[in-house]
Amino acid sequence: MARRGSDISTALGLLIGVGGLLAGFTIDGGGILALIGIPALIIILSGTIGALTVSSSIRAVLRPPRLIMQSLPRQAGPSPQLAQQLLEFAEKARRDGILSLEDTVEDLEDDMLRKGLRLVVDGTESEILVEVLESDLAIQEQKKMDDAGLFETAGGFSPTMGIIGTVMGLVLVLGRLGGDINELGRAVATAFIATLYGIGLANLLWLPVGNKLKLQVKQFRMQKQLIIVGVRSIQQGESPALVKEKIEGFLEEREKKELDANRTE
Amino acid sequence: MARRGSDISTALGLLIGVGGLLAGFTIDGGGILALIGIPALIIILSGTIGALTVSSSIRAVLRPPRLIMQSLPRQAGPSPQLAQQLLEFAEKARRDGILSLEDTVEDLEDDMLRKGLRLVVDGTESEILVEVLESDLAIQEQKKMDDAGLFETAGGFSPTMGIIGTVMGLVLVLGRLGGDINELGRAVATAFIATLYGIGLANLLWLPVGNKLKLQVKQFRMQKQLIIVGVRSIQQGESPALVKEKIEGFLEEREKKELDANRTE
Amino acid sequence: MARRGSDISTALGLLIGVGGLLAGFTIDGGGILALIGIPALIIILSGTIGALTVSSSIRAVLRPPRLIMQSLPRQAGPSPQLAQQLLEFAEKARRDGILSLEDTVEDLEDDMLRKGLRLVVDGTESEILVEVLESDLAIQEQKKMDDAGLFETAGGFSPTMGIIGTVMGLVLVLGRLGGDINELGRAVATAFIATLYGIGLANLLWLPVGNKLKLQVKQFRMQKQLIIVGVRSIQQGESPALVKEKIEGFLEEREKKELDANRTE
Amino acid sequence: MARRGSDISTALGLLIGVGGLLAGFTIDGGGILALIGIPALIIILSGTIGALTVSSSIRAVLRPPRLIMQSLPRQAGPSPQLAQQLLEFAEKARRDGILSLEDTVEDLEDDMLRKGLRLVVDGTESEILVEVLESDLAIQEQKKMDDAGLFETAGGFSPTMGIIGTVMGLVLVLGRLGGDINELGRAVATAFIATLYGIGLANLLWLPVGNKLKLQVKQFRMQKQLIIVGVRSIQQGESPALVKEKIEGFLEEREKKELDANRTE
Amino acid sequence: MARRGSDISTALGLLIGVGGLLAGFTIDGGGILALIGIPALIIILSGTIGALTVSSSIRAVLRPPRLIMQSLPRQAGPSPQLAQQLLEFAEKARRDGILSLEDTVEDLEDDMLRKGLRLVVDGTESEILVEVLESDLAIQEQKKMDDAGLFETAGGFSPTMGIIGTVMGLVLVLGRLGGDINELGRAVATAFIATLYGIGLANLLWLPVGNKLKLQVKQFRMQKQLIIVGVRSIQQGESPALVKEKIEGFLEEREKKELDANRTE
Repeated sequence: MARRGSDISTALGLLIGVGGLLAGFTIDGGGILALIGIPALIIILSGTIGALTVSSSIRAVLRPPRLIMQSLPRQAGPSPQLAQQLLEFAEKARRDGILSLEDTVEDLEDDMLRKGLRLVVDGTESEILVEVLESDLAIQEQKKMDDAGLFETAGGFSPTMGIIGTVMGLVLVLGRLGGDINELGRAVATAFIATLYGIGLANLLWLPVGNKLKLQVKQFRMQKQLIIVGVRSIQQGESPALVKEKIEGFLEEREKKELDANRTE
Repeated sequence: MARRGSDISTALGLLIGVGGLLAGFTIDGGGILALIGIPALIIILSGTIGALTVSSSIRAVLRPPRLIMQSLPRQAGPSPQLAQQLLEFAEKARRDGILSLEDTVEDLEDDMLRKGLRLVVDGTESEILVEVLESDLAIQEQKKMDDAGLFETAGGFSPTMGIIGTVMGLVLVLGRLGGDINELGRAVATAFIATLYGIGLANLLWLPVGNKLKLQVKQFRMQKQLIIVGVRSIQQGESPALVKEKIEGFLEEREKKELDANRTE
Repeated sequence: MARRGSDISTALGLLIGVGGLLAGFTIDGGGILALIGIPALIIILSGTIGALTVSSSIRAVLRPPRLIMQSLPRQAGPSPQLAQQLLEFAEKARRDGILSLEDTVEDLEDDMLRKGLRLVVDGTESEILVEVLESDLAIQEQKKMDDAGLFETAGGFSPTMGIIGTVMGLVLVLGRLGGDINELGRAVATAFIATLYGIGLANLLWLPVGNKLKLQVKQFRMQKQLIIVGVRSIQQGESPALVKEKIEGFLEEREKKELDANRTE
Repeated sequence: MARRGSDISTALGLLIGVGGLLAGFTIDGGGILALIGIPALIIILSGTIGALTVSSSIRAVLRPPRLIMQSLPRQAGPSPQLAQQLLEFAEKARRDGILSLEDTVEDLEDDMLRKGLRLVVDGTESEILVEVLESDLAIQEQKKMDDAGLFETAGGFSPTMGIIGTVMGLVLVLGRLGGDINELGRAVATAFIATLYGIGLANLLWLPVGNKLKLQVKQFRMQKQLIIVGVRSIQQGESPALVKEKIEGFLEEREKKELDANRTE
Repeated sequence: MARRGSDISTALGLLIGVGGLLAGFTIDGGGILALIGIPALIIILSGTIGALTVSSSIRAVLRPPRLIMQSLPRQAGPSPQLAQQLLEFAEKARRDGILSLEDTVEDLEDDMLRKGLRLVVDGTESEILVEVLESDLAIQEQKKMDDAGLFETAGGFSPTMGIIGTVMGLVLVLGRLGGDINELGRAVATAFIATLYGIGLANLLWLPVGNKLKLQVKQFRMQKQLIIVGVRSIQQGESPALVKEKIEGFLEEREKKELDANRTE
């Protein structure tokens, strides 16, 4: 359900933003056709795509659409279900010994939880365990951050391409001054379309999607850190009460109550 | 009282800021009606809301009003009362043993103080105690910082939406050059209203409220760190004199005297 | 003397800056009266004050004047006198034992030196000693940095208030185009005054004073760190030769010689 | 193959970017000749080169072309081949003892791998081993970052040189107002060419190439850190299973499978 | 020789930059006299100097010229000569004992090397040795960074002073609209000169010299860290082979060969 609500936030946000801009323009008496500029669109898009291609690689140019789609579903953060699961593992490991987890491990869906518990079952030293998991997390986080950075980079290039487009348009206009003033006005208006597109794309698409991806990275890191804390507790054979104190901090107030409810049942 | 004074600073600041701008405009001979622009307002607000929605989620759009209300009451920082309380706990624990705190713990209002003392009473190791409390603090701080960041993000999108609104207005004007110059002037004036709103909202509302929330996070962190230092001292059974030296650093000069006054009574 | 020279740098800098700007304007043929704009001043000041009030609290608005006065005297940094004093304490402690410092401690003017030596005399563990002093320093430094940040914030709001003032002025002008061109020109000129004031105040007052306060924080931190290093050396009973090597790094080249001169006497 | 695809991304990106800008301009009705401005080019290039020369040294001016060429081939990141090799060394060292690696060491192509294994064979302490390799990595990374910084610096100077060129052009135009309006327009258009070149060069060449070099530094660091982790594991004589867990985190999902495929053969 | 080449890079860079700008302007048909504006120069310089004086102190105003001169000679970085010297000390200390270095120490030119070896000869503990040297380095580095920061600050104030000058010029022009259009044009052109000077000085002098000073700080830090690594190795009595491995990382590829050549002789 939370997943559902979030699913549509990218589309809804674009709708509100673009819709509001157009509504304001129309109320002001403008015809939306006046805002259409094919040359401006070509300049902004190919300029931004070109700069991104030089910045990284051809593949990078092909990633943004997929990343926008990826940003649609909500990144799962630390959930009461995960906390619950970690608590149960901690109890089982304390009661029946760490090796009792062996059968469950390979069926786990989360990569880090599976790897962590496998290392625990294999008897890896506590220090090395944490080091391996932290290193994995850092590398995965870095990759996700690079993806978010791609959008920030696009958000930086897009407005300057808009300025380039507008200046080119003005150069065009200035070369033919002295003609009909109405036509002149329309030509200048056309030149400004590039600025509109450049700033608009940056502020309604590139930067906001970049922000969302960075938020998702934070959720991702939080979830994985909860797992690291949990796995280490399991290895140390800490008391379920202490594990619960450690884990609870990762949850929202109402999620803590959910956890409590499950526990006392 | 201090709470009261702060209560009104958001409203008072807005009053001074907006009032001053309008006063300057009126003295200059302008009619305030000239500054009203419904299309501009639609553009700025829906543009900013749209960008924020893409940036995070639909819920985020609904948070700012609640956060502005939250920013009205002052966030309590490290207070002499809290310091006093920690000192008394330290003395009691040293005199009657740590378990003597058991009855008091669950009645405490502050979450972190309660959790910290509960862990101390349960005999948690010093290192784990600090780790759990620091982790809780870091997560809570992060959430509050994300809220403050929401306003900074809005403060970044708002002026660019203003520029978009103005450029759209100019596109409109430029499409009908050659008409009556007075009407032309008024149309350009209207286009500038969007810039006014975009910059004005960012600099009188979004960014300042974001600043205030960040200040509150600092106060919050300071208060919680005082608690962590205090709880650790209680656990270590340090002498009240040393605890006082440690705690005093968190207080203002005149608050230290208050603490001294209470102590010598 | 050094204190004297610094005393007047704020005033002198303002004199040079404002004087130079006016001189350039006058040489160019302008009458200074043309630069006076009461509405612009109202807009800039009340806009900036309003934004600052929302940003923090009403008290914050009242601090800048006091802080400007505070920035007049020079913040004492690590001085050869202080180094000398620390060296003497180190020698005395080594010769006559740490308790021999007990009588001197309470007469010391510097808060951190007094607290540090008191903790040493009380037999505090080395690790806790450093932790307490570092924590005190961090908190004091943070407060001073927040003060400097206030000016940076003002320096950020001031130019945008100038832009708001200018745009409002232009809205006014554009509403009455088609009149006498000379009057029109003067009205636009008046609108630009707000930009002048906004940028001028930010770049000659807010930001430079903020810079100076930050420099003073650095001096403050350096002085206190010298004290922390010295106090720890005293506690460890290190040889005066080693203490001198440690302390010297904090002094300027010519100050080292001063220290040497005193020592060999 | 991957190498090949990347080889052309700098050229391809420039083609897309510049091509798109020119296409947009032509569709809009402009003649490409109107965008040629020798004086503007002289101003931008010599201004940027001059600023860079003052910034560092004459040699720095000669590096960018070489660095652009260097940025063409893809920087190798952590590869399954390298992981494979480290695993084999780990197995051999565990089976036949660390000294069994002695013969292979000097034939290794990678500087850090060779140095690391040589230190291991020489019996260097684990702590010193890591310290030496980390220090080498930090210094090499710093040098590569400085190179990338050169392009960022150029990307910062280039647009301001464009503004300088345009302002100079406007000064020229304004000195001869009142003439033929068509000629005036063309002169202003020429002035804007400098802005076009300044922003264009910055956003299609300097900044994107700087970005790519920074990406390459990240790949470089990742590859070297994989080596450090591997070499340390070899020295510790860790079990191949554990080494594999440590190393796998550096690889992409499909590269892990490649590694698994090789291992099970 | 390297020193020589670098000696002139500040002057050469200024020549290329300023020369190129003027060349572009002249080719475009401008007379260089049109770019001379005494009032603009007064505004930029006194505005920047005033802001710097408020920012720090009167002395700060007098430093930049000396610092520019200082930036002329190249800062020596880690050199093969220094590496060679450290290696020889390491060998001597290992062969004849650490005290054998006593006679050489006081003749050393480099402050940090002399202090470090003196502390080693005096039998200072390894941990304290590193702490003292690192603290000295941090303080010296901070001072050099503050100097570089002075130029960055000037580079930030300079363009805004240019804008102030231009706005003041426009205020002047706008006060006398309606006159001869040619004279009007020339007056506006004069107003723009201030922008030219402000941006030009910032981008050809202040910021590039600031960059160079920061580069020199990096070289300085690298050289001193090489010394710290070397001195610590000498104290530990590490084998020359290991010392060489540690030290080599600080050198360029061809410098390593130079070192090898000397060693094998």
